[in-house]
Amino acid sequence: MSGFDIAPEPDADGLTANLQGLDAQGQPISLPVVQERPLTIYLNRQEVITAMTLGDRPKEMAAGFLFNQNMLKRGDVITGIDYDDEIDVVVVRTAHETDYEAKLQKKIRTSGCAQGTVFGDIMERFETVSLDPDTQLSTSQLITLSKQINTVPSLYLKAGAIHGCVLCAPERPLVYIEDIGRHNAVDKIAGHMFLNNISGHDKIFYTTGRLTSEMVIKTVLMGIPILVSRSGFTQKGVELAQQAGLTLIGRARGSRFIALSGTQRIIFDHTDNAEDADNLSEKASAQRAFYDQTR
Amino acid sequence: MSGFDIAPEPDADGLTANLQGLDAQGQPISLPVVQERPLTIYLNRQEVITAMTLGDRPKEMAAGFLFNQNMLKRGDVITGIDYDDEIDVVVVRTAHETDYEAKLQKKIRTSGCAQGTVFGDIMERFETVSLDPDTQLSTSQLITLSKQINTVPSLYLKAGAIHGCVLCAPERPLVYIEDIGRHNAVDKIAGHMFLNNISGHDKIFYTTGRLTSEMVIKTVLMGIPILVSRSGFTQKGVELAQQAGLTLIGRARGSRFIALSGTQRIIFDHTDNAEDADNLSEKASAQRAFYDQTR
Repeated sequence: MSGFDIAPEPDADGLTANLQGLDAQGQPISLPVVQERPLTIYLNRQEVITAMTLGDRPKEMAAGFLFNQNMLKRGDVITGIDYDDEIDVVVVRTAHETDYEAKLQKKIRTSGCAQGTVFGDIMERFETVSLDPDTQLSTSQLITLSKQINTVPSLYLKAGAIHGCVLCAPERPLVYIEDIGRHNAVDKIAGHMFLNNISGHDKIFYTTGRLTSEMVIKTVLMGIPILVSRSGFTQKGVELAQQAGLTLIGRARGSRFIALSGTQRIIFDHTDNAEDADNLSEKASAQRAFYDQTR
Repeated sequence: MSGFDIAPEPDADGLTANLQGLDAQGQPISLPVVQERPLTIYLNRQEVITAMTLGDRPKEMAAGFLFNQNMLKRGDVITGIDYDDEIDVVVVRTAHETDYEAKLQKKIRTSGCAQGTVFGDIMERFETVSLDPDTQLSTSQLITLSKQINTVPSLYLKAGAIHGCVLCAPERPLVYIEDIGRHNAVDKIAGHMFLNNISGHDKIFYTTGRLTSEMVIKTVLMGIPILVSRSGFTQKGVELAQQAGLTLIGRARGSRFIALSGTQRIIFDHTDNAEDADNLSEKASAQRAFYDQTR
């Protein structure tokens, strides 16, 4: 029992392969390596993108990608999601054709790839999001969350070369999903929330990836007011977090972290005297660093 | 003197900003954070993409991106590259309009974003590349290269949250370029090679990023026969490396690594008795792990 609603399944079929090679002394070695598969996403009749992914949870991946690209909105009714694992295609069908198909067709006729327009739309929505000011996270809760996330069995601990994202309540981690792409992992969480009608307003989002502009934008679009990462920041990520009033916590290792935005949501209740939790968490952090170094 | 032809310039204007925040005890802290800027790339009159980048070396970034996307080929003559840092746009002009503009227009009319066609073209070229079978790398050379790369001043050591790519000769690292996106860093190296007519056949490519399919494809397109990473593998990356005959070395830390493809190019000359180089390199590796943990 991991205590998670959804936890990684590192030994599930098809997620890793055992490969043979040589170590630094020229001796044969075998190690588990994560899979990487293409997934082509359609919205109704419109092909949108082919992404390289871990391959699990294609329906969450597709719904979350479309939601985070602003191609699906909260009111849109999904009538079906079909996945064909022979040809690596997933089709999301909506009750009414969204306005995205026409918009994409128009945009791509005028100036190439649709990234520009889509991004413009996303920023319009970004500016309308109001994050819950009452959601809080204490430093002792943060330390406990990090420890639980870093010690539960995962593809990261088994094979490395993978990113993880975790949707959390302040009291416990809820949904931990991994992917070779950090944005895919975020999208799968967003898809899980969209398909299960889960609100982000009282949640915390934990990622192993860096706090770049894209990560901040996606977290805000999901309505989640607190974003935590083991990794560092970019200046644009911090600027957007400040603009949206997002609490941004980076370099979270053991009992340490740095917060560069929205610090009013943080309750500083962990003191250096609280040795037990701290030591446990430092141990988990050291384990993680060991894996980082060797995997 | 770093001994590099091009080394990172961590203190250059505009690459980092000092930001203020709170640490885990709620105390004020200031730290350097890397910049993240949009860069819109045009090929002649065709807008191709807007990427989020560190912002330095926009001309190498544009040329390398277009080369690695197969939109520029070795024979194409670049008549000029114009960069406007007010509006973050770079335009690559060629003597003859390439066939990519028409292809992009055609593709995007039929099925959305052009990723599919472009990818198909890339794989056609991937399959024609023949990597030099005579290029070799000894394990003692690899240890020395890693040590030099990990100890030279860099944005990574200063601010973290960044990827680095290094074009190396077996004897020494040549060109070390960083970016917030690992693929941007690769593209900048490819652009430097394209613009300076540098052949990859006798080179080694070192990256801090994982050995995914994209990383393998780009290395092969650059004609470089040996790819080394501090990070791990994906199964598809290994499969493509084996298909192309690329030497693939991952998890390179100190005197350790794992090779999963093309091991015939590796000379195993480092013995456990060579304590000096080993210890120095382990120290550099430990320093790096410390920074990974704290930044």
